[in-house]
Amino acid sequence: MARKFPRSFDRFRGASRPVHPGEAPGTLQTAPDATRTTIRFFGFSPETGDENVEERSVTAPEEIPELRKKWPASWVHVSGLGDLDTLSKLGEIFQLHRLALEDVLNSSQRPKIEEFDDILFLVARYNSWRDRLHSEQISLFLGENFVLSFQESENDAFDGARQRLRKGKGRIRSSADYLAYALLDSIVDHNFPLLETYGDRLEALEEESLNSWDEDTMAQIYKVKRDLAAIRRTVWPLRDVFQPLLRGDVDYFKEDTLPFLRDCSDHVLQVIDLIEHYREIATELVNVYMSGLSNRMNDVMRLLTLIATIFIPLGFIAGLYGMNFDAKTSPWNMPELSWRFGYPLVLGLMSAMALGMVLYFRKKGWLGKPNHKHKSVEDRLNR
Amino acid sequence: MARKFPRSFDRFRGASRPVHPGEAPGTLQTAPDATRTTIRFFGFSPETGDENVEERSVTAPEEIPELRKKWPASWVHVSGLGDLDTLSKLGEIFQLHRLALEDVLNSSQRPKIEEFDDILFLVARYNSWRDRLHSEQISLFLGENFVLSFQESENDAFDGARQRLRKGKGRIRSSADYLAYALLDSIVDHNFPLLETYGDRLEALEEESLNSWDEDTMAQIYKVKRDLAAIRRTVWPLRDVFQPLLRGDVDYFKEDTLPFLRDCSDHVLQVIDLIEHYREIATELVNVYMSGLSNRMNDVMRLLTLIATIFIPLGFIAGLYGMNFDAKTSPWNMPELSWRFGYPLVLGLMSAMALGMVLYFRKKGWLGKPNHKHKSVEDRLNR
Amino acid sequence: MARKFPRSFDRFRGASRPVHPGEAPGTLQTAPDATRTTIRFFGFSPETGDENVEERSVTAPEEIPELRKKWPASWVHVSGLGDLDTLSKLGEIFQLHRLALEDVLNSSQRPKIEEFDDILFLVARYNSWRDRLHSEQISLFLGENFVLSFQESENDAFDGARQRLRKGKGRIRSSADYLAYALLDSIVDHNFPLLETYGDRLEALEEESLNSWDEDTMAQIYKVKRDLAAIRRTVWPLRDVFQPLLRGDVDYFKEDTLPFLRDCSDHVLQVIDLIEHYREIATELVNVYMSGLSNRMNDVMRLLTLIATIFIPLGFIAGLYGMNFDAKTSPWNMPELSWRFGYPLVLGLMSAMALGMVLYFRKKGWLGKPNHKHKSVEDRLNR
Amino acid sequence: MARKFPRSFDRFRGASRPVHPGEAPGTLQTAPDATRTTIRFFGFSPETGDENVEERSVTAPEEIPELRKKWPASWVHVSGLGDLDTLSKLGEIFQLHRLALEDVLNSSQRPKIEEFDDILFLVARYNSWRDRLHSEQISLFLGENFVLSFQESENDAFDGARQRLRKGKGRIRSSADYLAYALLDSIVDHNFPLLETYGDRLEALEEESLNSWDEDTMAQIYKVKRDLAAIRRTVWPLRDVFQPLLRGDVDYFKEDTLPFLRDCSDHVLQVIDLIEHYREIATELVNVYMSGLSNRMNDVMRLLTLIATIFIPLGFIAGLYGMNFDAKTSPWNMPELSWRFGYPLVLGLMSAMALGMVLYFRKKGWLGKPNHKHKSVEDRLNR
Amino acid sequence: MARKFPRSFDRFRGASRPVHPGEAPGTLQTAPDATRTTIRFFGFSPETGDENVEERSVTAPEEIPELRKKWPASWVHVSGLGDLDTLSKLGEIFQLHRLALEDVLNSSQRPKIEEFDDILFLVARYNSWRDRLHSEQISLFLGENFVLSFQESENDAFDGARQRLRKGKGRIRSSADYLAYALLDSIVDHNFPLLETYGDRLEALEEESLNSWDEDTMAQIYKVKRDLAAIRRTVWPLRDVFQPLLRGDVDYFKEDTLPFLRDCSDHVLQVIDLIEHYREIATELVNVYMSGLSNRMNDVMRLLTLIATIFIPLGFIAGLYGMNFDAKTSPWNMPELSWRFGYPLVLGLMSAMALGMVLYFRKKGWLGKPNHKHKSVEDRLNR
Repeated sequence: MARKFPRSFDRFRGASRPVHPGEAPGTLQTAPDATRTTIRFFGFSPETGDENVEERSVTAPEEIPELRKKWPASWVHVSGLGDLDTLSKLGEIFQLHRLALEDVLNSSQRPKIEEFDDILFLVARYNSWRDRLHSEQISLFLGENFVLSFQESENDAFDGARQRLRKGKGRIRSSADYLAYALLDSIVDHNFPLLETYGDRLEALEEESLNSWDEDTMAQIYKVKRDLAAIRRTVWPLRDVFQPLLRGDVDYFKEDTLPFLRDCSDHVLQVIDLIEHYREIATELVNVYMSGLSNRMNDVMRLLTLIATIFIPLGFIAGLYGMNFDAKTSPWNMPELSWRFGYPLVLGLMSAMALGMVLYFRKKGWLGKPNHKHKSVEDRLNR
Repeated sequence: MARKFPRSFDRFRGASRPVHPGEAPGTLQTAPDATRTTIRFFGFSPETGDENVEERSVTAPEEIPELRKKWPASWVHVSGLGDLDTLSKLGEIFQLHRLALEDVLNSSQRPKIEEFDDILFLVARYNSWRDRLHSEQISLFLGENFVLSFQESENDAFDGARQRLRKGKGRIRSSADYLAYALLDSIVDHNFPLLETYGDRLEALEEESLNSWDEDTMAQIYKVKRDLAAIRRTVWPLRDVFQPLLRGDVDYFKEDTLPFLRDCSDHVLQVIDLIEHYREIATELVNVYMSGLSNRMNDVMRLLTLIATIFIPLGFIAGLYGMNFDAKTSPWNMPELSWRFGYPLVLGLMSAMALGMVLYFRKKGWLGKPNHKHKSVEDRLNR
Repeated sequence: MARKFPRSFDRFRGASRPVHPGEAPGTLQTAPDATRTTIRFFGFSPETGDENVEERSVTAPEEIPELRKKWPASWVHVSGLGDLDTLSKLGEIFQLHRLALEDVLNSSQRPKIEEFDDILFLVARYNSWRDRLHSEQISLFLGENFVLSFQESENDAFDGARQRLRKGKGRIRSSADYLAYALLDSIVDHNFPLLETYGDRLEALEEESLNSWDEDTMAQIYKVKRDLAAIRRTVWPLRDVFQPLLRGDVDYFKEDTLPFLRDCSDHVLQVIDLIEHYREIATELVNVYMSGLSNRMNDVMRLLTLIATIFIPLGFIAGLYGMNFDAKTSPWNMPELSWRFGYPLVLGLMSAMALGMVLYFRKKGWLGKPNHKHKSVEDRLNR
Repeated sequence: MARKFPRSFDRFRGASRPVHPGEAPGTLQTAPDATRTTIRFFGFSPETGDENVEERSVTAPEEIPELRKKWPASWVHVSGLGDLDTLSKLGEIFQLHRLALEDVLNSSQRPKIEEFDDILFLVARYNSWRDRLHSEQISLFLGENFVLSFQESENDAFDGARQRLRKGKGRIRSSADYLAYALLDSIVDHNFPLLETYGDRLEALEEESLNSWDEDTMAQIYKVKRDLAAIRRTVWPLRDVFQPLLRGDVDYFKEDTLPFLRDCSDHVLQVIDLIEHYREIATELVNVYMSGLSNRMNDVMRLLTLIATIFIPLGFIAGLYGMNFDAKTSPWNMPELSWRFGYPLVLGLMSAMALGMVLYFRKKGWLGKPNHKHKSVEDRLNR
Repeated sequence: MARKFPRSFDRFRGASRPVHPGEAPGTLQTAPDATRTTIRFFGFSPETGDENVEERSVTAPEEIPELRKKWPASWVHVSGLGDLDTLSKLGEIFQLHRLALEDVLNSSQRPKIEEFDDILFLVARYNSWRDRLHSEQISLFLGENFVLSFQESENDAFDGARQRLRKGKGRIRSSADYLAYALLDSIVDHNFPLLETYGDRLEALEEESLNSWDEDTMAQIYKVKRDLAAIRRTVWPLRDVFQPLLRGDVDYFKEDTLPFLRDCSDHVLQVIDLIEHYREIATELVNVYMSGLSNRMNDVMRLLTLIATIFIPLGFIAGLYGMNFDAKTSPWNMPELSWRFGYPLVLGLMSAMALGMVLYFRKKGWLGKPNHKHKSVEDRLNR
C-alpha cells in the first residue's frame, strides 16, 4: 500500500539513482524507468532567414559530425536517457569525460558547473507541474561551436527557445554560447509560472486558515512547504553555478553574453526570494491554522460549559424534589412540596440561578461573540 | 471567489510580470494594468534663484535632447509604464541597454545596481500604504549630467525632492549625482513613517494579546508579519546596492556626495533593524496570544469541572432517594426516607460534600483567581 | 487609550525621529520633547593635583575656544538637545560635518563610527532602567586634543568618569583619546548591572514557570524578551564600531590606549553573550510555562473525568429505579423494587461500579499523583 | 534498566572514548569492546590480469615491508582495533605520528584531514544499518605508494572496492592515490542506500501523520530526526576534508585523480542536501501530527458537547416533572401533570429543544463532517 | 526566597563580577566570595628522573624569581583569588599588564587570547559537576620559560598534568609551551566526562518522554538545555582562541607543539559537536513530551466522552419515565408505564442505544487502543 503513495518527494531523494557503493566511477547505467532516446539536430548561422537554419531529427549519432561541419554553430538536443549505446556514442563523438556522462545518466544531480578540457558542463533542473511537482535534470555541454543538451523526458523545456531559433528572431542564432544562455534562462524562467500556482494555492490556504479550518488545510500547507523546499533545492545551487561565470573565471561565454547571464542570475535570485517569501508565509499559516483550531475548541468548550453549568445544578434541584422522602413521617421532610406556592418558588429559584450563571458568563466575556463565520477576510484584516 | 481576495502579497510574487519562459530577453512588454506614461523635465544649474531651474512636462520624448543641451544638469522623470512607444524612444535617446529597459518594464525586480557603459542603473522599491501595503518599482539611470527616473504609478515618491529643487535650497541643484542620491534617500526614508504605522499596530496588538484575545488578533499579527516580510524583501537587497558605491568601485558619485550616500546606507540599516525588531516582537506576540488562549480555555474548563464535580455527585444522591424502592416491602429498602430527620441529614451530607469539593479546589489553587480583566497592562508588566 | 500604553519599545522605533522623507539631509531639527541644553567644560593636563583640572559650566558656546587654549586637552559635555542655536554654534566651533550634527539630533541612530576630516564621530547608546528600559543616544566626537560628547537627557552616564577626572586617579587625564575610551567603556559597562536585573527577573520567572503558572508569567517573559531584544539592538552594532579601531584603520587612538579598547571590546562581546544566553533561557521558559499550562489542564480534566465517569453511570442506575413503571400492572415491571434486599443489592452494584472505575483509573496511572505544589524547585531539578 | 535502552545515540557521544582528562596525548588505548585485529595485504600494479595483484592475510606486521617491496603499490587493510601490540608495530613500520595513531584508536573522531610529514591522514565515518544506525570510524593513511586503512569492526565497508581490485576493472589498480579515492568514495556512497531507508520510513510516517495519528508516530519521527542528525554529524565535516584536496593545497592526489575527487565531493553535497531535505520534512511532519492530534481532540469534544448540550437540558426537564410536588395541595403545583395532553406536550417541547440544538450546531458547522478516515492521501493532497 | 534558589545560571551571568561602570580599568578587586590564595611552584628540566623536577608550595611571591633561576622551565600555579596583595606582587614579578591581571580577578571572562609584550595571556573555563554545573575561569600566562596559571578555587583541574610532570612521562617536561598546551588540553578534555553525564540524563529523559510523562520531565529537559547552553558559552569562544595559534600568528608555541595544539583544537570541535547534538536531541524531546501530554489528554477526553455520551442519553430516558404524569388523568400520559412489557422494552431500547454508541466509537477508532503503558521503548522505536 505504501507503494501506491504519490511519492512526491521521491524524485528528490535520488530514488532513480541506482547507487551501488563501491562501484567503479564512470560506470554508465540507465535508470530502470528511462525513456527512449531521441536526438534532434539544429544547425544555424547568425543571419536571419529560413535558409540559415537546419532542423532535423537524427537516428544514428554517427551522422552528427557530418552535420556539424556544415554550420558555424549547432545544437544537439537529446531527450530520453534509455538508450545506453547511443549515449555512449555521443560521448565519444563529443569527447565527453566519462564522469560527466555518468552524471548525465544519474539524473539526481544537484545543479553544478564543471570544466572538462574545452567543454563546459552544466547541470540544472527543470521544474514543472504534471499532476504533481516534477523535477527533471537537464545537462548542458557547451563547446567551441556547439551546445549539447540532455533531458530525461520528452517533456519539452525548450520549446520557446526552439521557436525563436527557427524564426531567427533576436540574437538567438548569434552564437553557441548565447544559445546556451537562452536554454539556461528558459529553465530558470519556467519556475515563475510554477511558483505562481503555489502563490495561488497559498492564497486559497490563507483564506481557509483564517475562516474554515478544514481538517485538510494542514495537509495542504504541509504539501506546499514540502514542494517549495524541493524547488529550493533545485534552484539554490544555481547561485554557485553563476558565480564563476559572472566573475569571468571561465571564458566559454563571450563578453557581450555576460549582461544576459547577469540578467539570468538576477532571475535566480528573484526565484529564491519568492520561495523564501512563500515558505515564511506558509510557516505563518501553520500558526494561524493552529490558533484557529484552538479558537474553535474554545468555542465548543464554552458552549459545553455554558449548558452544563446552567443545567446540571438545575437538574440537581429538580432531583432534590424528586426524592421520595415521606412528608407524612416527619414535618422536616421537604415541607416545600406541600406549600401552596412551592412549585412556582422552585421554578423562580431555578430561573434566578440560570440568570446568575448567564450574567457571570457575560461578565467573563464568554458570551455574545457574534457568529463571524461569514465575515469577509478583507474586513477582518483591514478593520 | 479567490479573485476577490485582497491580494496583498500579490504584488510581491511577480504577478505583474508576464513571464513567458523561453521568450527572447530584452522583449519589451507593458504590464496589463500599466498606467499612461507622462514625462516631466527638470533642467537646473547649481546657482539658486528661479531662473536657474526649468520645469516642464514633455509630451514627445524627441524634445528632450534639445532641452538637455540648455542645462548643465537635468532630471527626466517618467511616471506610468503604459506607453511602450514613448518608453522605447526614451531608451534610444538615452542609449539604455535593452535588458535595463526590460527591467524597467517588468516591475517586479528586486533592488539592484548595474553598470551599462557610462550609465549607472539602479532599481529600488518605494513602499507606501494605500489601503494596503503597496510596493512599486523605481528605476534610476544616472549618467554624466542627467538622472532619468521611472516610476510605475502617478503616486509621487519624489515630491519633497522636487520642492527642494524648485526652491534651490541646499545642495540639491549642485549636480546630477547628488540629485540621484536625494531621490534614493527619499525612497529609503519613506519606509520610516510606513514602519511607524506598523509599530502602532503592533502596540495595539500587544494590548490585545495580553488582554482580550479577540479571535482576529492572530489574523492581525499574521498580516503584520507578512507585510514586514514583504517590506524586508524590498529593503534587504539595498545593502548590496550600497556596497559597491561606498567602496568606490563605481565612480558615478563624486567624492563629496559619498558622505551622503553613507548616511543613506545607515538609514537602510536602521530600516532593516527596525523590521527585524518588529518581526521578533510579532513572533513573541503569537506566543503570548497562544498562551492567552490556553489560559482562557483553562478558565472555562475549571469552571466546568467545578460545577460538574460538585453537582453530579449531589445529583446522584438526589437520584438515589428518588428511587421507588418500596419501603413497605422490606425494612432494608431505604429506611432513611421515613426517618424523622432523613431529609435534613441528606441535605447536610450534600452540603458537606459540596464544601469538601470547594476546599479541595481551593487547595489545588483552582479557585479565587480574581477577575483580572480590567487590570491595566502597565500594572501587569511592571508589578 | 492606546496612547496611555507604556510605549516601552517606542523609543526603539524611532518615534522621536521627525523623519520627513524627501527633506534635505543635514537639516537640523530638535525632537519635540528635547530637554534644555547645558554645557560643561573640563580642561585638564596629565599631571595629578587639583590645579591641573578645570571644571566649569558654560552658557555661551563662544567661550569654549578660549577655554580650550588654556589646556592641553579638554572635554566638552553637552546634555539636552533642545537648544538648536547653541548646538549649531557648537557645530561651527568644532567644525563638525552637518550630517554628523544631524545624527546627533536625530536621537535614534544605531551605534556607528565615522570619520569626518580630523574628527572621529562615534555613536553609542546608553541603556538604563527608569521604571522601564530606557535607551538614549550618546554621540562622541574625538579630535586632536578634545572630546565633545552629546547626551539626550540630564541623566548622567558619565558620573564615574567625571569623578576620576576630578581626582586625577589613573590614566584618565593622560590624553583626550584615553578619555574617549573611558567614556565609551562607561557606556558599555552600564549594561552589566542592567542585565543583572534582567537575570534576577528571569530567575523569578523560572521559579514561577516551574511552579505557579500565574497568568501574567507569559506577559512577564514576553517583556523580558522584548527588552533583551531592544538592548541587543543597541549593543550588537558596537562590534562593528570596534573593528576598525582595533585593526588600527583609524589612528585617533594612541598605541597604548589600544589594549584598553580591546578590553572594552571584550566587554561588548560579554554583554552580547549574556544577552543571547538570557534570550535562550527566556525562550525555554516559554516552553516550560506552556507545558505547565497543559499539565494543569490535564489535572483539571482528569478530575472532571474521574467524577463524571463514576457518577454519571451511577446516576443513570438511580434514575432507572426512579422510573414510575407500575409493578402492579405487570410482574416484568421492575420487580427488584419490591425485593427484600433490592435496595442493598443496588447499592452494592453501584459501589462495585465505582470501585471498578477507580481501579481502572489507577491502572491508567491517572490517580495517586501527589500534590507536588509545595515541592521545592531544588528538589525537582536535582532529583 | 536505563542500561537496557538501545543506546542509539551512544556511539555518537564518544562513549567508547575512554577519555582521561590530563592524560598524556598519544597514549594508545584500545576501547574495552574492540574486536580482534586482522590484517589484509593487497599488492598490485596497474596492468590487468590476475598475476598483477596479490591478496593475502597477514598475521605478523613485520612481514609487510617485505611484501610492499614486491609491488609498485599496496593496500594494507586493518580491521578490529583490539590488538594494541600489532597496531603499535604497524605505526612503527609506516612511521605514523603518535597522535594519528591515537586518533585511529579513539574511534569517535569527527571526519578530518591532516598531514604528517609525507603521509596524508584522513578520518571518515562509515554509516550502516544493523538493527539500528551504526557509525564506525575509518582511518586512511595515504603515502607515496601505499594506502593503510583501519576499520573498527569486521563489517566490510570496502567489499566493492576489493572486488574491483581483484578483477582489475577500471582505473582502480592505477595508483595508491586513486585507490584512496575509491575507498573514500565507497564510504560516502554507502550513505545513499542508508538514506533511502530513512526516506521510506518518512513516507510511511507521512501517511501515518496525515491519517492515523498512532501514538507512536511521534516517537518514530523523533527517532528519524535523531538519526538524521547523527548522520549529518558524520558527513558535514567531510566538506572541510575535501576543500584542501580540491584546492590543491596538498599534493598527495595526482592531477588526473582530481576530477574523481570532485565527483566524490559532489556526492557529499548531495548527501547533505538529502539529509537537510529529510530533516525539514520530518520537522513538518511534527506539525502535521500535532494538528492531527488537535483535530481529533476537537472531534471528540464536539461529540461530547453535542450529546451533553442536547440531553442535559432535556434531562433537566424530565427531572422537573419528576418532582413530587403535591398537586392536591395547591393548584399551582405542576398542573401540567394532570393535563390531558401534558405528556405529549412535554415530549414535543423536548423534541423542539433537541432540534433547535442540532440546527444551531449545523449552523456553526460542527456537524456533518463526513468520516474521512478512508479518504486516500492522494485525494486529500491533490484535491 | 528568590535568594534560596539554586542559582545555576548565576555563575554565567557575571554575578561575581563587581562591575562599577565608570570605574578606572585595571582596578584590582577580589570577588566577595574569593578563596584564600595558595601558590605552588614547579621547576623542571626536560630529562626524566626525580632530580630534574622540583615541586614546592610558595608562601611569599618574592621567593619565585630565585626559584625560577634554578630551572630551565617553571610552572607557577595560583589557586584562590582572595589575596589581593599576593596577586599584585605576582603581577609585578612577572610584569603582567594591569588589564590582564584585572581579567584574572574578574572571573567571568569569556575564553580569549591576548598578547602583552612577551607574554601570551589565555583565558579558558574549566567546567565540572559539583552538585550542579560549575564553571570556573582559568587564566594562563605563557612566557619565554614559564607558565603562570590562576584558578578560582582549590578544585584541581590540573591533577593529571601534575602527576605526569612529577613522573616525567612523555614530553611534558620538554618545555614551558608544551606544558601550557597540556594544561589547556586538560581543561578541554574535562568536558568529555561532564557531557557524558548529560548524555546519560538525556537518555533517561528520552525514556521518560516516550513513556511516563512525569510532570517534572519538562523541568528536567529545560535544565539540561540551560546547562548545555552554559557549557557552550564557555567552549565556543575557544575556537577563536586556537585560530591564531594554529595559523602561526603568534610564536609562543614551538613548531613541534603545533600538532598537539591542532589535536586539542580538534577536541574543542568535538565538544561543540556533541553539545549541538545534545541540544538538538533535547529540543526534540520537548516535542515528544508535548505530544505525549496531548495524547494523554486525548485519552482522558475519550473516556469522558465515551461514558458521557452513553449514559447521559440513557439517564434522560430514565428521567422521562420518572416524570409524575398522571396516567389516570389521560390515556396520553405515558401509557408505556402500565404496559406489560414496558420496562423490558425500555431496558432494551437503552441497551440498543448504548450499543449503537459503542459501535460508533469503534468505527471512529476511539476504542480498542490497547494499554501500551508497558510496551518497551525498543519495541516502539524498532517496530
